Amino acid sequence: MVIDRNECLKLLRENEEFLVLSHEHPDGDTLGSAFALCEILRIMGKKRAFLCSDEISSDFNFMTGGFTPDYVENPFVIAVDVADVKLLGKIGEQYGDKVDLCIDHHLSNTYYAKYNLVEDRAAACGIIYEIAKDLGIETNRYFRNCIYTGISTDTGCFRYQNVTPVVFRIAAELTEQGVDSVKINKIMFETKTKRFLRLEMIARETLEYHFDDKCALITITQDMFRKSGSDESECYPITALPRQIEGVLVGAVIKQQKDGSFKVSVRTDDGIDASEICKRLGGGGHKGAAGATLGYDLEKGKEELFKSIKISLDGKI
Amino acid sequence: MVIDRNECLKLLRENEEFLVLSHEHPDGDTLGSAFALCEILRIMGKKRAFLCSDEISSDFNFMTGGFTPDYVENPFVIAVDVADVKLLGKIGEQYGDKVDLCIDHHLSNTYYAKYNLVEDRAAACGIIYEIAKDLGIETNRYFRNCIYTGISTDTGCFRYQNVTPVVFRIAAELTEQGVDSVKINKIMFETKTKRFLRLEMIARETLEYHFDDKCALITITQDMFRKSGSDESECYPITALPRQIEGVLVGAVIKQQKDGSFKVSVRTDDGIDASEICKRLGGGGHKGAAGATLGYDLEKGKEELFKSIKISLDGKI
Repeated sequence: MVIDRNECLKLLRENEEFLVLSHEHPDGDTLGSAFALCEILRIMGKKRAFLCSDEISSDFNFMTGGFTPDYVENPFVIAVDVADVKLLGKIGEQYGDKVDLCIDHHLSNTYYAKYNLVEDRAAACGIIYEIAKDLGIETNRYFRNCIYTGISTDTGCFRYQNVTPVVFRIAAELTEQGVDSVKINKIMFETKTKRFLRLEMIARETLEYHFDDKCALITITQDMFRKSGSDESECYPITALPRQIEGVLVGAVIKQQKDGSFKVSVRTDDGIDASEICKRLGGGGHKGAAGATLGYDLEKGKEELFKSIKISLDGKI
Repeated sequence: MVIDRNECLKLLRENEEFLVLSHEHPDGDTLGSAFALCEILRIMGKKRAFLCSDEISSDFNFMTGGFTPDYVENPFVIAVDVADVKLLGKIGEQYGDKVDLCIDHHLSNTYYAKYNLVEDRAAACGIIYEIAKDLGIETNRYFRNCIYTGISTDTGCFRYQNVTPVVFRIAAELTEQGVDSVKINKIMFETKTKRFLRLEMIARETLEYHFDDKCALITITQDMFRKSGSDESECYPITALPRQIEGVLVGAVIKQQKDGSFKVSVRTDDGIDASEICKRLGGGGHKGAAGATLGYDLEKGKEELFKSIKISLDGKI
């Protein structure tokens, strides 16, 4: 059932025990939403617990450290920032068909919960922030830090297309009321591990340019992960790099999987459709970022990739 | 003379010809302020020209391309985001004692102009934005792009300590009215030149750790600038890197100057004072970022640097 904000407030008020769920591979928005919601519930005098399928990165210690779960027996189950029941991961086996309320900002939400509040004006944390305001709750710095983490990580620190006036206004209010934004930004956006730096150096040695430097490619092998001590979870900045190079219209990063096979991530500039490039290889994605599987033969995979990129580049000219 | 906002509006209304000045080595805030102010003046039907001592980076083509100067004979001279007359650079010789109005956000402003409007609630662009509102001017996308460039570059895309509620509220209004923030962010924060990538790779090879990895140091020589084709103007991300490494409290980058001598930039984490480290070497700066000259002998300079860093690290323990 689709519900509105008021019905959501009513559900929070009339229940006493809650279990809050984040999606698997938890990010700043699902965790910020979950811990901010738990803080609201604590302030309301409710009992609340939290579950997530995967380990939470120590980057979020400032959130997890401020949370002590209550014992809950027969809780009202809320999933936050979880667009599809599959995204609950392994806790979905136990709770997938028991989600009472889903609070989410993805229009792709599959409405798997009993009650569903889906709004896309801001990150999931933005909805939680507004719920706290609607409830008339006097928030604290911990709550505001959780919300800030969600809205800033969801928008790449206010850089991406999805940044809205609502996001900026929430950031203004958080800053006014006091939030540790500089410390959080440092942890989320500016800290680099030594193993990541090693991986980046090794991977960047493979940087190659094609098609009059309009295409740049980096290749990361399992051997590089082993040598650096890093893994795929830290690859995001490397995946973004080739397309950031001046004049490059198509940036690609090939990553070898644990089974030895290769996958490619393609990022494109305006006017080139990354999903088209990847569709020709049996993959898919969005206009600006897409992916495909290249099989076990790197050289053959690259050849097919370049063929597909050439079609898109030729189409532009 | 110190003036308030209303007196500033009066000066803009009652004069007909303007010359707008930016500071030397122009950045996003001084240029955004200047071109946004020129656009306000154009909309008001005034004549206006622009001057700056140094060449403007092609990154700002989207600003300069939207500006055609008028011929001005006896202009009212306005300096924007210029805290000290010395910062005008070589145009200061001709105009230093002829600045009628200075609009700035630095509390360190030396009040060198005839009329001075200094407010520190936001970047200089923030003041220009509010002036346009006060004047009741219907702004356009070009104006908004200039303002966005100023407030975003001044705050490291909303990351630094100097981000205020006012800055976020202006960003909300710009986003609401339409602004090319994603394109501007891409140019300002996400584009890397090939020569910078080469320099970064060569410089990172010199990365060394000291004092149980609490200190990290990178050394950039003139030879590296030559080999990469890059120069000091592109060094900022490398200067920031050592301190971004997990666990590093003191990050230092030594750069060889054109005359062969060496300078060090020191960045520190909470609890370590970078200006103290540099003061012992005859330099100075702020708590989080400072600098000093190390002379011509790199090995001797490094030795003195490490001695000073050790005193600060020992003081912390």
